[in-house]
Amino acid sequence: MLSGFLYRNLNELRRAIIKNVSRKRGTESIYFKDAFHRVLAEDIYSRTDIPSLSVSHFDGYAVNSSGTSEATTWKPVKFKVKGAIYPESEMENLKIHGGEAYYVTTGSLLPEGADCVIPVERVKHLNRSEIEVFHSFKPGEYITLRGEDFRRGQKIFSKGHKLRSIDVYALGLTKNFRLKVYRKLRASILSIGNELTDEPKDSEGRLSYNLFFYRLLMEIGTEASILGVVDDDPEEIRKRIREGLRKTDVVLTIGGCSVGERDYVLRAAKSLLGFKLVARGIKVQPGRVTSVSLVEGKPLIMLPGHIQSALSGFLLVAVPLIRFMEGYPYCLPFKRVKAKFAWGIKLKKFKPFIKVRFVETFKVNGETVAKPLLGDSSLISVLTGANGFVLIPKNKDIVKKGEKVVVHMMNSCC
Amino acid sequence: MLSGFLYRNLNELRRAIIKNVSRKRGTESIYFKDAFHRVLAEDIYSRTDIPSLSVSHFDGYAVNSSGTSEATTWKPVKFKVKGAIYPESEMENLKIHGGEAYYVTTGSLLPEGADCVIPVERVKHLNRSEIEVFHSFKPGEYITLRGEDFRRGQKIFSKGHKLRSIDVYALGLTKNFRLKVYRKLRASILSIGNELTDEPKDSEGRLSYNLFFYRLLMEIGTEASILGVVDDDPEEIRKRIREGLRKTDVVLTIGGCSVGERDYVLRAAKSLLGFKLVARGIKVQPGRVTSVSLVEGKPLIMLPGHIQSALSGFLLVAVPLIRFMEGYPYCLPFKRVKAKFAWGIKLKKFKPFIKVRFVETFKVNGETVAKPLLGDSSLISVLTGANGFVLIPKNKDIVKKGEKVVVHMMNSCC
Repeated sequence: MLSGFLYRNLNELRRAIIKNVSRKRGTESIYFKDAFHRVLAEDIYSRTDIPSLSVSHFDGYAVNSSGTSEATTWKPVKFKVKGAIYPESEMENLKIHGGEAYYVTTGSLLPEGADCVIPVERVKHLNRSEIEVFHSFKPGEYITLRGEDFRRGQKIFSKGHKLRSIDVYALGLTKNFRLKVYRKLRASILSIGNELTDEPKDSEGRLSYNLFFYRLLMEIGTEASILGVVDDDPEEIRKRIREGLRKTDVVLTIGGCSVGERDYVLRAAKSLLGFKLVARGIKVQPGRVTSVSLVEGKPLIMLPGHIQSALSGFLLVAVPLIRFMEGYPYCLPFKRVKAKFAWGIKLKKFKPFIKVRFVETFKVNGETVAKPLLGDSSLISVLTGANGFVLIPKNKDIVKKGEKVVVHMMNSCC
Repeated sequence: MLSGFLYRNLNELRRAIIKNVSRKRGTESIYFKDAFHRVLAEDIYSRTDIPSLSVSHFDGYAVNSSGTSEATTWKPVKFKVKGAIYPESEMENLKIHGGEAYYVTTGSLLPEGADCVIPVERVKHLNRSEIEVFHSFKPGEYITLRGEDFRRGQKIFSKGHKLRSIDVYALGLTKNFRLKVYRKLRASILSIGNELTDEPKDSEGRLSYNLFFYRLLMEIGTEASILGVVDDDPEEIRKRIREGLRKTDVVLTIGGCSVGERDYVLRAAKSLLGFKLVARGIKVQPGRVTSVSLVEGKPLIMLPGHIQSALSGFLLVAVPLIRFMEGYPYCLPFKRVKAKFAWGIKLKKFKPFIKVRFVETFKVNGETVAKPLLGDSSLISVLTGANGFVLIPKNKDIVKKGEKVVVHMMNSCC
């Protein structure tokens, strides 16, 4: 065990975060066209009846259905056609009485007195202004009634709803042109290491993970930004973290958190005003040096420098924490799939830790199989092959071939 | 049945599209940082060994493992520490012999002669330059070997692979700074109707579906653009379709395709040079007036004006067609979920047609239940409630309560 680390288990961490992290988030008013995938901060009510008047659902003839009640194939009923109505027609003074009809196209409003539409293919045209009808029709047939889609004042979406494409359309349709949504959570990310660079073409340095985690942060819905790469220099790290905390709601660091003399990030963070340690290490491997602190109430998540360790900390700590700040329950939000383990593995080290193993799932004879991808926590190739991960409980030192496991799917996310 | 429509079934349509639609797509060279979610148009090979030299996986002491073979807790072995190596250290002339060690931190390269690392917590520090070791270590322990992650010349991604966040990182790491990807398919969309507007605030018009389908086109990965709203004027429609065909790879129209005098889009399309009709109607309800044509080889998909009909045509025709153009097999790509139908429904009309019914799925006692959302094909409220759809085979006129159905999930897409 590394000295100085306390290794909280995930339940303790969950409780500590729920207790210490604030969920208060601002709201903003936006135009409905910009609302795709935003989360409502208010209930939404229709501001109008949709449709605003009864509307023809077909091309045909608007009549009063009572006039068709006696119509049969051997004794048709005649209607006099008074004119034609189109979706854009002015509707003032358009009215029918018994025995009268208007030609209407799909989407046209109905004239006063009409309560149904007879589709054009179900009438016989005697001449330009007379038709014959051979069946009886009921009120409401082939029309959409005023307010049938949305009634004025009807609640159509609840606070907390994440808006989809069709929902954005419904907002515009019901005249909800401006709406209150939660401000996106702002997250920033900083990589620490003398050997790192964000511009690999211009230098011999190793590419930092900033871009990778930036993408993941965007995919979970935050407004992400990159604070750059800094050397192993506590004063410089402190400055950048402070910059991140000033501009954003949560800061993630990657690397610079080994035990001993090279534990730069924690040293830097401790010197910030209002620093409070929430967890120094988690009982998860890889990822055990992941730490969480608050600086004047804002979370600072310190991820390890190895990619699998950093991703493990990101998936198990940063994702639920950020989603919690956004108003969701604190939990692992990944889609779960049951699978059979492709072959047996032994887990000798870190007995009291939860072990994360990245897997690739595929179907064999209709069954989902999870192939564990093993290798040093610094290997990228393990992750380019993976589409999910399994959590192996503490003290479990073997997973057998064919054993049922639950895979958390990373989908397009990782 | 509407006159003039031939109603192809979906298999006939599939064959006609595979036969007539070209899959040729351009490629472009892009910077790796812009490659997220793009599809590779070439195989990718690592241009370097990763890691470039063997690397320490821990903070500890780099030694030659042979010197530890005799070490035990009661008879430890001493090593002389020659200095310290950090990830950014210059490695020239750094070498160890038997009995010598270098202090190395995580991520540091190994000096010549070293083949393993002893973690710092597993040695005893006698003084500043001497340590004791109590166990034997094997070659390769606590290090990552040169090329273990990616070997120079190793194929890491295949042509056709859609790049995820971690893959983009691997591109940069392996010095694949520029790469060839398929050009995104460009799709444009046009709504037809005198009563429509894209700017509902500025007019009394009804909001067109352009923005809705624009979002769906973006979500299936095309570069979408909106051609606007045009009146029911064949000459104006013709001009806009031609503009769309000039700028983009596929054009979608919504509305303007009723039977008879108001069949503006087909009339406009027919007057374009190189026009060829592929399907005039599909055996699907709602959505049956959906038509497909080619204009000098470019697809023009004509969707009906009612929202459910248009969406049905989009999901069953436009999505597989566009994906086919992008190189995927022609199929319905939606995730399928088995569910029990929540209550029985009768289907009286359109017997020889496949019926599309939008549903909302939810879990009851661990089982997925699909609740059918019924109502006129013009109702938006049916779709704001739906998260999937079922396809009911032709000639089937009843779905019983509790009957097993396959739900195609629309996810965030619709």
